[in-house]
Amino acid sequence: VLIVCEAAYTWFAFAAQALAPQAPLAPGRAAGAVVHPGAQVDASSSIGPLAVIDEGARIAAGAQVGAGCYVGRQVRVGEATRLHPGVRIYEGCRIGARCILHSGSVIGADGFGFAPFKGQWVKIPQTGAVLIGDDVEVGAGTTIDRGAMGDTVIEDGVKIDNQVQIGHNCRIGAHSAIAGCVGIAGSATIGRRCQLGGASMIQGHITIADDSIISGATAITHDIRQAGFYTGIYPFMRNREWERNAALLRHLDELRERIRRLEASVRTLHTESDR
Amino acid sequence: VLIVCEAAYTWFAFAAQALAPQAPLAPGRAAGAVVHPGAQVDASSSIGPLAVIDEGARIAAGAQVGAGCYVGRQVRVGEATRLHPGVRIYEGCRIGARCILHSGSVIGADGFGFAPFKGQWVKIPQTGAVLIGDDVEVGAGTTIDRGAMGDTVIEDGVKIDNQVQIGHNCRIGAHSAIAGCVGIAGSATIGRRCQLGGASMIQGHITIADDSIISGATAITHDIRQAGFYTGIYPFMRNREWERNAALLRHLDELRERIRRLEASVRTLHTESDR
Amino acid sequence: VLIVCEAAYTWFAFAAQALAPQAPLAPGRAAGAVVHPGAQVDASSSIGPLAVIDEGARIAAGAQVGAGCYVGRQVRVGEATRLHPGVRIYEGCRIGARCILHSGSVIGADGFGFAPFKGQWVKIPQTGAVLIGDDVEVGAGTTIDRGAMGDTVIEDGVKIDNQVQIGHNCRIGAHSAIAGCVGIAGSATIGRRCQLGGASMIQGHITIADDSIISGATAITHDIRQAGFYTGIYPFMRNREWERNAALLRHLDELRERIRRLEASVRTLHTESDR
Repeated sequence: VLIVCEAAYTWFAFAAQALAPQAPLAPGRAAGAVVHPGAQVDASSSIGPLAVIDEGARIAAGAQVGAGCYVGRQVRVGEATRLHPGVRIYEGCRIGARCILHSGSVIGADGFGFAPFKGQWVKIPQTGAVLIGDDVEVGAGTTIDRGAMGDTVIEDGVKIDNQVQIGHNCRIGAHSAIAGCVGIAGSATIGRRCQLGGASMIQGHITIADDSIISGATAITHDIRQAGFYTGIYPFMRNREWERNAALLRHLDELRERIRRLEASVRTLHTESDR
Repeated sequence: VLIVCEAAYTWFAFAAQALAPQAPLAPGRAAGAVVHPGAQVDASSSIGPLAVIDEGARIAAGAQVGAGCYVGRQVRVGEATRLHPGVRIYEGCRIGARCILHSGSVIGADGFGFAPFKGQWVKIPQTGAVLIGDDVEVGAGTTIDRGAMGDTVIEDGVKIDNQVQIGHNCRIGAHSAIAGCVGIAGSATIGRRCQLGGASMIQGHITIADDSIISGATAITHDIRQAGFYTGIYPFMRNREWERNAALLRHLDELRERIRRLEASVRTLHTESDR
Repeated sequence: VLIVCEAAYTWFAFAAQALAPQAPLAPGRAAGAVVHPGAQVDASSSIGPLAVIDEGARIAAGAQVGAGCYVGRQVRVGEATRLHPGVRIYEGCRIGARCILHSGSVIGADGFGFAPFKGQWVKIPQTGAVLIGDDVEVGAGTTIDRGAMGDTVIEDGVKIDNQVQIGHNCRIGAHSAIAGCVGIAGSATIGRRCQLGGASMIQGHITIADDSIISGATAITHDIRQAGFYTGIYPFMRNREWERNAALLRHLDELRERIRRLEASVRTLHTESDR
């Protein structure tokens, strides 16, 4: 049921890494890169064509910033971390060492925080940042919002697939794996070594225990306090069957009521027949 | 259940805005910006490094266009609107005043319109545009498609979170709030002051009444004519339980049939015992 | 129920194409484009401002590469194909002729492949590519991952809407249409002429028969061997009703058990009354 990963690939993975080492980009600054004079860029790092490194940003040794990336003010990019072309990191966020961020990912956009006022919405400034640990991978088109007051935290070794949305002030525990199209609403806390299947959705402000496994396409609407394997998927069927069954689903309480009345009737009949 | 916002933050929001004012970018054109000679860029606006402003585009007073943005032909960007780095706006779209568009958002890509012809698809040109009102916020990675004939319209004060998809010819009523990962199919009309929870999905061509609230992870498959709070989430459970229950869900009609037969039997028994 | 397309638009589509022909960009290289000397760019193609064409890439006749695009090493872009601003194509991928790729789409990022090792994840190098046929359209923000060993293949004439995620080693059959927000997990095979409704989710490693139609918001968790129209959507209702019904949904097996016991009781009563 849409679960993330399988075992047994481990040795294959090590072997494949040995056989297909990725050539790092050449160190230095490519044509058209715009590096603010107030940025600190290690000489062994590689800045791709038309990348922008803003004021106060620090790019560590061996890091690779791809073509057209934007690294905001005061951002830190750790050693040997690779930003593929077109990654954007907002002011003040920190990325650890040996991370891989894929194209189109956005780190540190404003969290979705508004307060109602006379039928309109007032923006709550999002003053926290995003802190990403070491050895994290972030998929293409994935977005991780900055915190409202505190920070959004992605711990070491977390692997995140494409088009995942992580809201403000979430914390994702170390070595968890999050498959594509997952949405995690604000202030959710995901434990360590969890696996979230593709397109699962996690409500805001809830906590998921370490080592939990969530099936794909499952909405988690309250805390999970005990590790386990959880699912909530509407089974698909031929559309005609679905129409019949879905109509009944709205009236399960009536079915139960009819069962209750039957039980009462049958009890009465038994009593009578016993006399 | 995955609802967007809570009250009580309002005064906090005002206070936080006063305490954490965002420094605007310096006016003028940064290094490497490419501004078409036929574009009209107000002198008080700020064009970031490596941004592209195409022919006939107008950038109003105090607007900020971030690094690497693309502002297409004839696009209008209103006063004091901020485009974060890497926003892309297709030809002819209009963005109002005081809007905030986050990185990776795409305004005005073609709607998904194709007609079948001999087992293949023929593209229907998408000749409308996207019109965005004042005080709208658009999240990172959000996409809003241009209309097929008429326009796609986002009214004033609408707040849209990350990775939301809005199809061609939709209309989103003023001051509605749309949480992350929501999909709204083409020609849907969302009322004013609605709240769509994260990952809810709205079918095309339907209408949702003003002031409706939709839970997260809920699919809206027909019109909502009356304001209210609507939900449709498959409850999650331990996978083993789910397997048992999901199998029964496909056969609700059989359960109902067995209840019917029981009711008939019990009526017969009652009649007999009355004799 | 969230289905992609309707017929009857065909002649309209042809007429509209004739009436609203899209002006191609002027051929040549715009200001600030960075073209590697080892790239082969046809003289009739158009390279937009601040686009990057990397080593060994080939841009065919009449192709248009928009502002800020990144075309990786050894990538091939076919004749008359249009990349809107901000498309990114990783090393070694091939795009056919007459394709349209919208802004923010990412072709060829690493598939999500990790093997577990002592509580951590080891990356499996993704050494395949993405092969896209002719006449394919790819929506804004859509991501198509490169294969792990073999390639990810999108056959001719496939139309893909915005924010679709296609995992590594998938194969999408010719002339299939995929609506917005769909997620297709790795190694899934979608037949020819299929229609996947918006926000439907396809589990990895499964096969869907040619000419299948999947409703929006439906999770497909096992093979579909026979063409047909399939649905699995939890019907939405007022939240209070939903709470009542969802609670019962967790206990369908108990309802069935009560029905069984009633049936046994009624049989006993009938037997007794027959005596």
